[in-house]
Amino acid sequence: MSAVEDRRAALRETLIDAAERRVEADGLASIRARDLAKEAGCSVGAIYNIFDDLDALILAVNLRTFAKMGAEIRQAMAEAGDVPPAQRMIVMANAYLDYASAHPRRWRTLFDFQMSIESDVPEWYLKALGELFELIAAPLRELFPDAEPERIDMLMRGLFSSVHGIVLLGVESRISGVPRARLEEMIAFIITAASDATLH
Amino acid sequence: MSAVEDRRAALRETLIDAAERRVEADGLASIRARDLAKEAGCSVGAIYNIFDDLDALILAVNLRTFAKMGAEIRQAMAEAGDVPPAQRMIVMANAYLDYASAHPRRWRTLFDFQMSIESDVPEWYLKALGELFELIAAPLRELFPDAEPERIDMLMRGLFSSVHGIVLLGVESRISGVPRARLEEMIAFIITAASDATLH
Repeated sequence: MSAVEDRRAALRETLIDAAERRVEADGLASIRARDLAKEAGCSVGAIYNIFDDLDALILAVNLRTFAKMGAEIRQAMAEAGDVPPAQRMIVMANAYLDYASAHPRRWRTLFDFQMSIESDVPEWYLKALGELFELIAAPLRELFPDAEPERIDMLMRGLFSSVHGIVLLGVESRISGVPRARLEEMIAFIITAASDATLH
Repeated sequence: MSAVEDRRAALRETLIDAAERRVEADGLASIRARDLAKEAGCSVGAIYNIFDDLDALILAVNLRTFAKMGAEIRQAMAEAGDVPPAQRMIVMANAYLDYASAHPRRWRTLFDFQMSIESDVPEWYLKALGELFELIAAPLRELFPDAEPERIDMLMRGLFSSVHGIVLLGVESRISGVPRARLEEMIAFIITAASDATLH
């Protein structure tokens, strides 16, 4: 790399670091170009020289969140050892709950950021998400060996969405949610029920 | 009522109407006292003469949302007729999905509004929520006649949260969600699985 490319790569990291700290502390709404430029010691223009827009910077933060959350989920699975598939999904879901509880704003930023299937999601982002989803798909394939890949994908999304709903309303102590002390129990209930289900 | 009380009650309705229209069209963030005062033809001070703060006004809008959503859910149940408890929950969940799809901003306002069990939620609001939750609790009591009321409450919250998660990620077409065309199928899968589960 040339010296210019080096400096550009270094500034890119500095900006993602700064955005990551802000997301962790105050969430998505705290990301403002002027503040980030000040923190990184660059001009506002320099940010847009590196990122197309602030959305691209937030995607880079979310990619780190995927990596950190994924590492915690994989560690929890390794600690659990060789357990049956339903139990493996429960371990994962509890690690997901723990991550969301420990980093609520960073976790919410994965979802608050308006990104739908209709928008132009970069391939590398979908790949990172796909790697996390594969962790859920693997035990589902063991549980339902006859299910087509498309069916496994639906079950994975349905089950992830269910656990996400329980975690979301629970972590934020919503009046409609499951109380914190009972979250693991209800997550286990839903995963066990789905794992024992007969597919039609 | 005195003429003053009449005028006050009329202005209260006018303000809730205006806030309701704004929530329906643009969501929670569009609620600003100055705009509402202009629309209702009153001073900003007059708003705070009626409502303690804008949160109280939003609660009044949410109460109407509970009533309207509840009416649609009850109508769907009436149309379904005398069906088994799991099927009744599926009918309800689909009506919930339909309501969220048709009124996404109004529906999101029920949840975006930061109100947790730690905050001071008025009794009348909890009562309205409780009436909706009772619709889910009734079929659960039929399915699990030996379960204690506290257990039924947990199952109700866990199942509501699961369906809410599927609806939330699905209606907003999130990359992690169930595709729209498959939402009813996955909602039915989760509810059927939970209904068939054995309680320990």
